[in-house]
Amino acid sequence: MSKIVMKFGGTSVATTEKIVNVAKRIRNVKDKGHEIVVVVSAMGKTTDELASLANDLSENPTKREMDMLLSTGEQVTMALLAIKLNALGIDSISLTGWQAGLQTDEVHRNARVDNMDASKVLKLLAENKVVIVAGFQGVTSDNEITTLGRGGSDTTAVAIAASIEAEICDIYTDVDGVFTSDPRFVTNARKLEQLEYDEMLELANLGAGVLHPRAVEFAKNYKIPLRVRSSYNDEEGTILKEEVDLENNLVVRGVAFESDIVRLTIEYDIPFNGSLASIFTTLAANHINVDIIVQSIVDGVRPAVSFSIKKESLAEAITVLESNKQVLGFTFADFEVGLAKVSIVGSGMVSNPGVAAQMFDRLRKENIPVKMVSTSEIKVSVVVPQNEMIHAANALHDEFGLALI
Amino acid sequence: MSKIVMKFGGTSVATTEKIVNVAKRIRNVKDKGHEIVVVVSAMGKTTDELASLANDLSENPTKREMDMLLSTGEQVTMALLAIKLNALGIDSISLTGWQAGLQTDEVHRNARVDNMDASKVLKLLAENKVVIVAGFQGVTSDNEITTLGRGGSDTTAVAIAASIEAEICDIYTDVDGVFTSDPRFVTNARKLEQLEYDEMLELANLGAGVLHPRAVEFAKNYKIPLRVRSSYNDEEGTILKEEVDLENNLVVRGVAFESDIVRLTIEYDIPFNGSLASIFTTLAANHINVDIIVQSIVDGVRPAVSFSIKKESLAEAITVLESNKQVLGFTFADFEVGLAKVSIVGSGMVSNPGVAAQMFDRLRKENIPVKMVSTSEIKVSVVVPQNEMIHAANALHDEFGLALI
Repeated sequence: MSKIVMKFGGTSVATTEKIVNVAKRIRNVKDKGHEIVVVVSAMGKTTDELASLANDLSENPTKREMDMLLSTGEQVTMALLAIKLNALGIDSISLTGWQAGLQTDEVHRNARVDNMDASKVLKLLAENKVVIVAGFQGVTSDNEITTLGRGGSDTTAVAIAASIEAEICDIYTDVDGVFTSDPRFVTNARKLEQLEYDEMLELANLGAGVLHPRAVEFAKNYKIPLRVRSSYNDEEGTILKEEVDLENNLVVRGVAFESDIVRLTIEYDIPFNGSLASIFTTLAANHINVDIIVQSIVDGVRPAVSFSIKKESLAEAITVLESNKQVLGFTFADFEVGLAKVSIVGSGMVSNPGVAAQMFDRLRKENIPVKMVSTSEIKVSVVVPQNEMIHAANALHDEFGLALI
Repeated sequence: MSKIVMKFGGTSVATTEKIVNVAKRIRNVKDKGHEIVVVVSAMGKTTDELASLANDLSENPTKREMDMLLSTGEQVTMALLAIKLNALGIDSISLTGWQAGLQTDEVHRNARVDNMDASKVLKLLAENKVVIVAGFQGVTSDNEITTLGRGGSDTTAVAIAASIEAEICDIYTDVDGVFTSDPRFVTNARKLEQLEYDEMLELANLGAGVLHPRAVEFAKNYKIPLRVRSSYNDEEGTILKEEVDLENNLVVRGVAFESDIVRLTIEYDIPFNGSLASIFTTLAANHINVDIIVQSIVDGVRPAVSFSIKKESLAEAITVLESNKQVLGFTFADFEVGLAKVSIVGSGMVSNPGVAAQMFDRLRKENIPVKMVSTSEIKVSVVVPQNEMIHAANALHDEFGLALI
């Protein structure tokens, strides 16, 4: 009898009909003799609807009270699912975050899991019950209800899987698994059987994500095998683990891309006595996320720095830079819009130094100009014109043999 | 600074607009310098909607899970109200039943309050916060969420009022207070300024209730002044207390009535060796509520018993009686439908022995036949033909001078 955590997202439990389907799927797994903990999200658009009620009442609703409000969503789903399972003859019990023992820090709306005391869950599993836990929510040491922020239910599932030493944590979602690239745009993108945690982290951070990075990090830290699979069919999905089995010797396992990137360039006069860091400290203090940073020298003497941000942050970034021009000590700022980021990800790159070169070579052959480059041990990102993004993604997907099977 | 509990029912908080009105009313009371605990029900039809989802999934939903499900309703209201109060600049915090310290027994869907630990509420009041507590819900000593059944939010309000020694517990509702009779049917029915707990208990049990009997009993036991008043205007409402001030020397303070009563009559052959009690034990075991019981002798020798039940229980009562005929030892059963109960209530009756006679006399003058009679220290009930119910109620309302002011 192995322990399994099954997590169902909001679209999988959006209606009572869908809850019936989820209950039957749980029964199938239960019939195989597993001990099961189920983690559920709020039904469909419930969270948005609750938030909209709050926004009717206040422009800036108290975060603590938003947690009170939003945490009811999962509580409704878990009770309905337990009711259906019991009606199907599967002994089942639901637990809120605080009942399940999910302790968090005090940061309302974006709490982090401090501890998961699984004693109650384990006791109920030992009584042969299917235990259903509300995702996304926890409790502080002071009995305050918190929510975990975006992707929170995935994090709940992984935290519980770690605490009960589950064999696997299955994340049921509306896609069949993690793909080599977005199948809507990249011809022959195919589902991966396996992927490493770090690769998933890079893909998720690059906008190709089906899992929240925080949940992946958690799974990585506790070495919980995490499987992304469809709640609508019985396909195997994609397993995330620490090290994947050799899969066709692929060095690159995914191509991610992200549109609406802006490149900002800042130039300094000489003599330059400041620190480039100060500009990024100022931007961070104003909640502007900077992605790729490239430092250069203009005309052989004047220092310059280019960096990329999301288009939606541009107006504020310019305001911040202009109003701090004196303090930051730069003389010239410019920006280029209409850009996109395309990245190749794969843990095999570490031992294959030619990957970046192969990438640039293919882009050159495709006449796609590269505006910026960023590399990590398992990823190479390039910034290209936005109208070349899909072209670049398809070319690289082909170049690294991702559609070969 | 006196402590006040304000309770708002589902219709008073049915929309965000109504929640805004409730928030402004609370601000007015707060501005007078009071310490305030607010108890809220679920918004409008929320509880029914949640129950309907559960019924989609199971004919007989697990009671424990129903409590999980339904308790979300009040949690939504309290969070929204706290958000609005905070937006109005009134420092406010919401608490679920378990956070507020409302401990109950283990009977899901109909739990009784065992204890109210007010330490957290008092601490928050001392911090000058308006404390909003979810009505209708509590927690067992084993951290299981329970609900208090019908009228549960009233009970929550009274339990909290008792535990914090509130000056008054205000029940805001959609009527102006407790009336001498139902104004929809009785001409000149008027609002009572005061009423005794016991009188309210009789009126509530007789179907004229604006407050649940359990809440009234609780208030009586702890001597909490309870005020029923409108959430739509500033009228004073009706205060319930242990002994009312003399109000126009009224002996009778209310006329209640209830339709759809059936009289069942059971006759026994002689010699009769059984016990009349056994028939009522059998009915009770089958959850059939018996109201008035009259014992008599037919033809001077054969024992008989008549009793009244609600029409909706008739089919089952007959089935139960027929299938137990042998054991219970009766020979004949008959029933009469199309009856109603009309009652006069007033604590002054104890010291005014002529009240029942005056009642029968008036009914005789009105040519209203009396089928059954039941008396208690503060109440006289008669069963009359249903088509005479409103006639009887108006006549008695007039007879005892209830419309005189």
